[in-house]
Amino acid sequence: MRLRYEQIDLRLRHAFTITRGSRDTVPVVIAAIEHDGITGVGEASPSQRYGENTGTVTAFLDRIDLSRFNDPFDLEPILREVNGLSHGDASAKAAVDIALHDWIGKKLRIPLWRIWGCAAEDAPVTSFTIGIDTPEKMLAKAREAAAYPVLKVKVGVPNDREYIALLHGASRQRLRVDANEGWRTREEALEAILRLEELGVEFVEQPMPADHLADTVWLRERVHIPLIADESVKTAADIPLISQAFDGVNIKLMKCGGLREALRMIHTARSLSMKVMLGCMIESSVAISAAAQLSPLVDYADLDGNLLIINDPYHGVEVKTGKLVLRNLPGIGVEKLS
Amino acid sequence: MRLRYEQIDLRLRHAFTITRGSRDTVPVVIAAIEHDGITGVGEASPSQRYGENTGTVTAFLDRIDLSRFNDPFDLEPILREVNGLSHGDASAKAAVDIALHDWIGKKLRIPLWRIWGCAAEDAPVTSFTIGIDTPEKMLAKAREAAAYPVLKVKVGVPNDREYIALLHGASRQRLRVDANEGWRTREEALEAILRLEELGVEFVEQPMPADHLADTVWLRERVHIPLIADESVKTAADIPLISQAFDGVNIKLMKCGGLREALRMIHTARSLSMKVMLGCMIESSVAISAAAQLSPLVDYADLDGNLLIINDPYHGVEVKTGKLVLRNLPGIGVEKLS
Repeated sequence: MRLRYEQIDLRLRHAFTITRGSRDTVPVVIAAIEHDGITGVGEASPSQRYGENTGTVTAFLDRIDLSRFNDPFDLEPILREVNGLSHGDASAKAAVDIALHDWIGKKLRIPLWRIWGCAAEDAPVTSFTIGIDTPEKMLAKAREAAAYPVLKVKVGVPNDREYIALLHGASRQRLRVDANEGWRTREEALEAILRLEELGVEFVEQPMPADHLADTVWLRERVHIPLIADESVKTAADIPLISQAFDGVNIKLMKCGGLREALRMIHTARSLSMKVMLGCMIESSVAISAAAQLSPLVDYADLDGNLLIINDPYHGVEVKTGKLVLRNLPGIGVEKLS
Repeated sequence: MRLRYEQIDLRLRHAFTITRGSRDTVPVVIAAIEHDGITGVGEASPSQRYGENTGTVTAFLDRIDLSRFNDPFDLEPILREVNGLSHGDASAKAAVDIALHDWIGKKLRIPLWRIWGCAAEDAPVTSFTIGIDTPEKMLAKAREAAAYPVLKVKVGVPNDREYIALLHGASRQRLRVDANEGWRTREEALEAILRLEELGVEFVEQPMPADHLADTVWLRERVHIPLIADESVKTAADIPLISQAFDGVNIKLMKCGGLREALRMIHTARSLSMKVMLGCMIESSVAISAAAQLSPLVDYADLDGNLLIINDPYHGVEVKTGKLVLRNLPGIGVEKLS
C-alpha cells in the first residue's frame, strides 16, 4: 500500500469571515492510497482551532508507514496504528480514513452509502453558508443562493441582529445560525437566542465557548430551539459528556478523524436521543462527498464547503434544490476534473 | 425479495439448566431471503424472558411484506419498516437482519467481518458454558471442554459455591459467571461476588434483577471485577442509562434485533468506555456465525450456542483452542450441511 499526497489551495468565491478571522484561499491536502491497481482518494482540511495546518498534516502523513499492511480492508488495525501515532492530527487522520474507504468502495464497485445500508433518497437538504459581510451584501448573497432552501449564517458579531432580521424579512429561505462560541456570557446568549427564535431560526450551533458546559445547560433550559454542539464535541467519547447541554451534535470528518469515527458518533448520538448534523470545513468535493455518504443517517447537513470554492479539483456529490444527491459511483463517488 | 422460514428443534448435548428452568431441545426458526438468485440466511432463537416463542416469531415473519423492496442493500428503509411493525419480536427481527446482511455479503462475495473493516486475527476467545448439574458432573463437563480456556458457569442457585470452588481447584480454565438476575438482595450479591473474586473469577454477568439498577450501582462500588449487563440492556438506547451500574454490556442479536443494532451498541458502549461482550442464546451456526462477524470489535465472546447442540444444520465459524476462527466465506460464512 502506498500513500501519496499533494497540497492544493482552494480559492473561495467570497472571502470568508468567521469570528476568528477572514480569508480568501484555504490550503488543503489531497491524499491517495494505491494498492492492487486501485487508488483511493482522501482529503485533509486542517483547522487552526485544533492546532492544525498543512504543515502539521504533511508532517503527520510522512510518519505513516503503510508498507506492513497489505489489505486496505484491514481498517481496524490500520487505523488503530495511524490514530495511535498522535493525539491530534484529526484532519490528517481523516485523509487516510477517507482514502481507505474510497479504495474499499472502488474495489467492491459500490458506493459507500450502499455498503452502509443507506437509501439515497434519505439524504437530507444541505444548508448553504452566507459569509459575514455588510447586511446589503449578505442579502445579495442570499439571493444568489436562491436554489438553497436553508441558509446558515454566523452570529456573535456586532451587526448580527441587523442582517438576520433583514434575511428573515427578505427571503423565504430557512435560517440556521452558528455562534462559533461567540457569546461570552449566558445572559447575552439567552437574549440573542430568544430573539432568533422570534425570527424563526431553526437551531443554534455552539452558543457558548466549548468549556462553558454548565452555562450551556442553563441556556438549554431557557430556550426552545435546538442547541447543536460543534466545538464542544470532537469524537464519540465526548458525546455522553455533553448530552445534557445540547440537543444535537455537529459531526465533522476533520474534527473526528474520518468516516469510521463519524459512524460511531452517529450511533452514540442516536442512543442518547440526540439530533445529528453533518458539517464540514472549506473542503473540496473529496471530503464533502465522503461525508455525504453518511448523510442519509442524519437530521441536518451543512455540507457546502465545496460549493463555496471556484477551483474544486473533483466532481462528486451533487445538490438539487438544496438536497444532496448521492450518485451511484463506487467509494466516495468522486471523479477528478482535468 | 422473498422471505421463507422453517422451524427446527435444536437438540442439546446436555440438558440445559438456568435459574429459570431446564430443557433438552430448543426450537428456532431459520429464515431465508431470496433475491436475484442469491439466498441470505438468518435465524431467530426466541427467548421466553422477552415474551417470544417460535409462534410469535412465525406470526411476526408472516406480517412482513418485502415485495415493495427490490434491493437488500436498502437495509435502512427495510429494517425501519420491519422494526416498526412491533415493539418486541427482537429475535424475529434479528432473523431478517441477519438474512439481509448474509445476502449482501454473498452479493459482494466478501465476509461481513471484512465489510466492517475487521481483522480476523482480532477475534477473541469464546467462553464455553457448563450447565448446572451436580458438582461432580460439572467437573466432568469441564474436563470434556478442556479445549476451551474459558468456562462460563451460571450462579445464583443453591450449590453454586461448591461447584465454583471445585472447578477453580481442579481446572486451569478461567471462569466467568452469569447470575441471570439470581441474587435478590444487594448484600447477598456482594458477599457472593467477593467470594468469586477470591476464586479468580473474571467477571460477573447481571448480578441483580434488571430493574434493581440503584442496587447494582451500590454493588459496583464495592466489588473489583467487572459487572456485565445482560437482562438490563437490550438495545443501544439502554446503554447510557445503565452505564453507571455496569462496567460492560452483553450484546445478543436475539435481544437487540440484529447485526445493525449490535454494531450501534458496540459504538455506544465504547463511547462510554464500557467493555463489550457478545453473547448468544442456544442457536445454530447461522446466528452464532453472524454474531462472530462482529467479534473482532469486542472484548469478550460467549458464542458457544452452536457448540452445545448435536444437530447443527449449518457449518460456520470455527473455534480453535477457544479462539473464534472467522472464515473467508461471503456474508455470515455458513454452509448448509446435507
